Amino acid sequence: MRARDYGINIGVLPVGLFNAITDVPGVKVGHTTLIKGNHIRTGVTAILPHSGNLFQQKVPAAIFAGNGFGKLAGSTQVMELGNLESPVVLTNTLNVATAMDAVVGYTLQQKGNEKVQSVNALVGETNDGYLNDIRGRHVSRQDVLQAIQTATGGNVTEGNVGAGTGTVCFGFKGGIGTSSRKLPKSMGGYTIGVIVQTNFGGVLQIAGAPVGKELGTFTFSNQLLNNVDGSCMIVVATDAPVDSRNLERLAKRAFMGLAKTGGIASNGSGDYVIAFSTAEQLRIAHSPASPTQGTELLTNDYTSALFMGAIEATEEAIINSLFAAENMKGNGKEVAALPADKVIPILKHYNTVK
Amino acid sequence: MRARDYGINIGVLPVGLFNAITDVPGVKVGHTTLIKGNHIRTGVTAILPHSGNLFQQKVPAAIFAGNGFGKLAGSTQVMELGNLESPVVLTNTLNVATAMDAVVGYTLQQKGNEKVQSVNALVGETNDGYLNDIRGRHVSRQDVLQAIQTATGGNVTEGNVGAGTGTVCFGFKGGIGTSSRKLPKSMGGYTIGVIVQTNFGGVLQIAGAPVGKELGTFTFSNQLLNNVDGSCMIVVATDAPVDSRNLERLAKRAFMGLAKTGGIASNGSGDYVIAFSTAEQLRIAHSPASPTQGTELLTNDYTSALFMGAIEATEEAIINSLFAAENMKGNGKEVAALPADKVIPILKHYNTVK
Amino acid sequence: MRARDYGINIGVLPVGLFNAITDVPGVKVGHTTLIKGNHIRTGVTAILPHSGNLFQQKVPAAIFAGNGFGKLAGSTQVMELGNLESPVVLTNTLNVATAMDAVVGYTLQQKGNEKVQSVNALVGETNDGYLNDIRGRHVSRQDVLQAIQTATGGNVTEGNVGAGTGTVCFGFKGGIGTSSRKLPKSMGGYTIGVIVQTNFGGVLQIAGAPVGKELGTFTFSNQLLNNVDGSCMIVVATDAPVDSRNLERLAKRAFMGLAKTGGIASNGSGDYVIAFSTAEQLRIAHSPASPTQGTELLTNDYTSALFMGAIEATEEAIINSLFAAENMKGNGKEVAALPADKVIPILKHYNTVK
Amino acid sequence: MRARDYGINIGVLPVGLFNAITDVPGVKVGHTTLIKGNHIRTGVTAILPHSGNLFQQKVPAAIFAGNGFGKLAGSTQVMELGNLESPVVLTNTLNVATAMDAVVGYTLQQKGNEKVQSVNALVGETNDGYLNDIRGRHVSRQDVLQAIQTATGGNVTEGNVGAGTGTVCFGFKGGIGTSSRKLPKSMGGYTIGVIVQTNFGGVLQIAGAPVGKELGTFTFSNQLLNNVDGSCMIVVATDAPVDSRNLERLAKRAFMGLAKTGGIASNGSGDYVIAFSTAEQLRIAHSPASPTQGTELLTNDYTSALFMGAIEATEEAIINSLFAAENMKGNGKEVAALPADKVIPILKHYNTVK
Repeated sequence: MRARDYGINIGVLPVGLFNAITDVPGVKVGHTTLIKGNHIRTGVTAILPHSGNLFQQKVPAAIFAGNGFGKLAGSTQVMELGNLESPVVLTNTLNVATAMDAVVGYTLQQKGNEKVQSVNALVGETNDGYLNDIRGRHVSRQDVLQAIQTATGGNVTEGNVGAGTGTVCFGFKGGIGTSSRKLPKSMGGYTIGVIVQTNFGGVLQIAGAPVGKELGTFTFSNQLLNNVDGSCMIVVATDAPVDSRNLERLAKRAFMGLAKTGGIASNGSGDYVIAFSTAEQLRIAHSPASPTQGTELLTNDYTSALFMGAIEATEEAIINSLFAAENMKGNGKEVAALPADKVIPILKHYNTVK
Repeated sequence: MRARDYGINIGVLPVGLFNAITDVPGVKVGHTTLIKGNHIRTGVTAILPHSGNLFQQKVPAAIFAGNGFGKLAGSTQVMELGNLESPVVLTNTLNVATAMDAVVGYTLQQKGNEKVQSVNALVGETNDGYLNDIRGRHVSRQDVLQAIQTATGGNVTEGNVGAGTGTVCFGFKGGIGTSSRKLPKSMGGYTIGVIVQTNFGGVLQIAGAPVGKELGTFTFSNQLLNNVDGSCMIVVATDAPVDSRNLERLAKRAFMGLAKTGGIASNGSGDYVIAFSTAEQLRIAHSPASPTQGTELLTNDYTSALFMGAIEATEEAIINSLFAAENMKGNGKEVAALPADKVIPILKHYNTVK
Repeated sequence: MRARDYGINIGVLPVGLFNAITDVPGVKVGHTTLIKGNHIRTGVTAILPHSGNLFQQKVPAAIFAGNGFGKLAGSTQVMELGNLESPVVLTNTLNVATAMDAVVGYTLQQKGNEKVQSVNALVGETNDGYLNDIRGRHVSRQDVLQAIQTATGGNVTEGNVGAGTGTVCFGFKGGIGTSSRKLPKSMGGYTIGVIVQTNFGGVLQIAGAPVGKELGTFTFSNQLLNNVDGSCMIVVATDAPVDSRNLERLAKRAFMGLAKTGGIASNGSGDYVIAFSTAEQLRIAHSPASPTQGTELLTNDYTSALFMGAIEATEEAIINSLFAAENMKGNGKEVAALPADKVIPILKHYNTVK
Repeated sequence: MRARDYGINIGVLPVGLFNAITDVPGVKVGHTTLIKGNHIRTGVTAILPHSGNLFQQKVPAAIFAGNGFGKLAGSTQVMELGNLESPVVLTNTLNVATAMDAVVGYTLQQKGNEKVQSVNALVGETNDGYLNDIRGRHVSRQDVLQAIQTATGGNVTEGNVGAGTGTVCFGFKGGIGTSSRKLPKSMGGYTIGVIVQTNFGGVLQIAGAPVGKELGTFTFSNQLLNNVDGSCMIVVATDAPVDSRNLERLAKRAFMGLAKTGGIASNGSGDYVIAFSTAEQLRIAHSPASPTQGTELLTNDYTSALFMGAIEATEEAIINSLFAAENMKGNGKEVAALPADKVIPILKHYNTVK
């Protein structure tokens, strides 16, 4: 069940067909979920901006560090050059190196990349060490490759999958969530899609309703929750023709969507947003045929609707991750899913759902 | 009537005595309100970190540009040196120069500053040109000085005063608002105070309730509201001993509070946060007695409660500005106050107030 | 006499026709020089990216703060929106407000701007308070307007003029300097022009020769020179079609040019670079005719030659400012010009000139 | 032979005992050099801020990206939290993941870190793919650990060692270089040490003398040199008690030192500076004993001498790397060392050496 299945409506803009990041044409998502024995609860999620050779056909991209307590590999080059040349891969904190290594290997071996000597792998993470034996670094390069190779469009599995397998959010089981917005034609008709890996704390609000307060479980409400310092990785895709500068602005708005769920970006939470544009005419050739490139870019004045879409889709993606996640035992601990049976009555009390 | 007078409770942390930025010991606020004839609806708001000579006893400070479409004078020096050496002054967009000039003059003439040859005046603004004849640049240096000189502690007047005299927020009359949070002793006992000048758009939420959606007035709901591109200046004060780096992080959280009211930081909105610490032992002497200075700083690990306070106080300050503001005619136009008679029933419907 | 007139050759790239920022087609420079009585030694320098209505036809721009101890008004909006909508005006530290006010007025009154309600004036400064009665704030709005209105192309007066009238550089009289580079056609044929307002310290090197060391006058060589904390404002223009992101990179290279003269960006020096592109097809309409704009942009891969040009032109512009400046008395003090009769023999000793 | 052995004097400040980064008390450097068969020419260099448990006793740190075309892992967390919790490791571009993985493993297994679940490994790189079979990714975790474990104080081997084994600089063989400055007691008596991994292009200047121009080998002088897009990693250590904000400023000055050697920070050069302070009283406990920490920090006003030291030491470290490096064949190519027999006469011609 996703938020909308419960009658929860977030924002005012229409959603895309799948209400997923894959509504942005060409975007694919793949998960490798590692649930083994009593201690391994982790995984990998890969997001592909397009199905071609990403290194040879880079996409405009930007990054916003809402709170930089995190190990986002590859960020400085994205910011300097304004582009992304690899899949975006999310995993656990201590396997970032593994994922980098796999992405580098993946890129080196792709057809057409025989002479490539430099690859900027963009790898984000959150700390799933509460439910997962994170020190065991159980993600393998093969796990990463599998997430990339099995990535598909269409519906995206949410909850306890991929990089969200072992995460905790607002004291409940977190995970992967996704959502999208499709702007009306009068606003450009562009799609904005978001996928999140939720692993952070705060005072949960669902479509404005004070769920965390009502349940009495929020950051600083007790000592345990103080330590729910995880992270939230947010990936924003759009087919709008926006360059790196405006993608950075778009990324900032996704962080605003996180705020609307009650997230507080606590000291220990690595809250990063990665934004890219899939607009085909903006692809950046690794070896440009000529010194200049013609592009058709959205002007600053027409970005506000995109901003609104990014806020809404991020908020909904986070809420989706919570509804999709299920109870999880691991590493000697247990984290309960968001209890729909308690939450829906609260939402009804606040008239958020009928 | 302030939000809490209506029974609206935002967040989970306790408020300070005045529920105002002035709950931070030593902070003073002054307003000059200019309502003259049919066309002048503007003013000045000054925030003083302490009552001494600010140039000689600077305070740690930082700035976060949520959306930099705005004319915040003095920002780069604050970010480089990590300190603030003047009152923070807010006014309208086209009178920033007037305010800078007045602050420079004010500083030069202060006792002890006879040899000062460089002053970094921190002046923010929003565009009140809908209700105000902004092109007339009606704010005078004397108006600015008056706001500084009449600044006081205690209760802060909100609504159509000072730099908020002519502003518009979520399609309603905006203005000045303030709020504070006082952390429990177990979290350090620090106070965080916020004051805002609200002049921006989005989809209004009050304590989570979808007021803008219910009223049918929100950005992109009609053409007129598209153009409500104003700005939101946010000033955050705290007595917690935090340096410039952690103040910048605190400033980012205030931007999250703006997000919770439904603000979208549209392209044309200059959304800035200025944060400073009033902790006495952190004062930065203009002419230090020795090369090093001893300080006692809050560690990163203890900042999260401050972050939460900044989010809550900012959200509430914005809502306070809306409830305090009254209908305003000016410049041939009229903007209605937030209609409490319609809003309170909505809040009741959503059980946000009883 | 300029550096090249003495046989000093900086760098390896060819210079433009005037060896000035005005070699970039359309760029104009104007000075107002204020030398009055015994105490007034200051002025204004205005740089116009093109001769049309800058507000209606903005240019791509970026800013790099090498050392942000300075009062560069307007910087945050340039960085957010990636464009410049006013002349760049340089003056003394305490008259930034005057210049802002004048630029705002100038823009408001321009034909076509009758409805403009927001203007981002970009005003830089350095502190000329050693030779100038800076506290007197002697620059008037009329002085600023005059610099804008009298701006012309072609040769640019250097030395004790405009915003450089009262400045001090490496312990000698500083001032205005300019230079340019014209890339060979094989590198794109673009022009890079630089103008500087020099007012900083360090250990002077001229085309590599250790002039400061030989003369025994450098920062920390004695107490007096410790305090030569001024600033260096650097403005870089190019006709290459580069967007704001690559202009920021270009701006960073100008800072490298400053380094090559022996500047150390001391704590008190506000060393800023403003870079803009005059490429006509990159002009940004204030009211865009359509949501997207077609542009033809230089790719990252072809920026290195521009970078090299910016480094060389900045180094030479600074040296030009020193050779052009003459002895100046003012404010009860005197600063000697760089003594060519001593410097040229040093340069000959180091075989920098023949 | 180092630069000073040839009589080359860079700057005006005195050097430390070893003229190396290890002059900063407690700093250690270790190299693993991989020269195997015809194709492997790479390695690892590790810099340890102190000999204790770096994770438990972090040091204040900052990063400046002069040109972010590079894969500096760990940078965002250093910038957010203002500290460094691992050794700094340098290697080749495609082995960054290997080095991260090794540093994470190293940290996890250290005594006292049994419960650590998050490690921010700071790993920089340059591209040695001209002389090295970089695609083979020949660096192993063991190689990385060895560099860390064999790190020592005292003299630092320069040239074709460690991460500099296969690098190319100004068209000559680059490598590792180091230098230091020891401020006079009147300026605080602090030490600033720098180590560099040189792999970039431009127009070489040695102590100001135009060596690259004289030799006719410089960027854009021919097509081949255009492609010498490498990187320059610069690590700056100081025992001065400076926090992260002032360390970032210090890092910027190191980039100025690079400029003085003729480096142009070309598009493809990842030029990063990492700066940290070893001042013992600034150590940041992983689990602070109390919410606040007392520190004694250098004030802004006393930073300029440090800045000057960082510029000088960086310039000299780069030049040292060139003089120390020797001819190298690898990967089917050959790069000659800087030819001292041609360079010294040039330096004599320019009276840079006697």
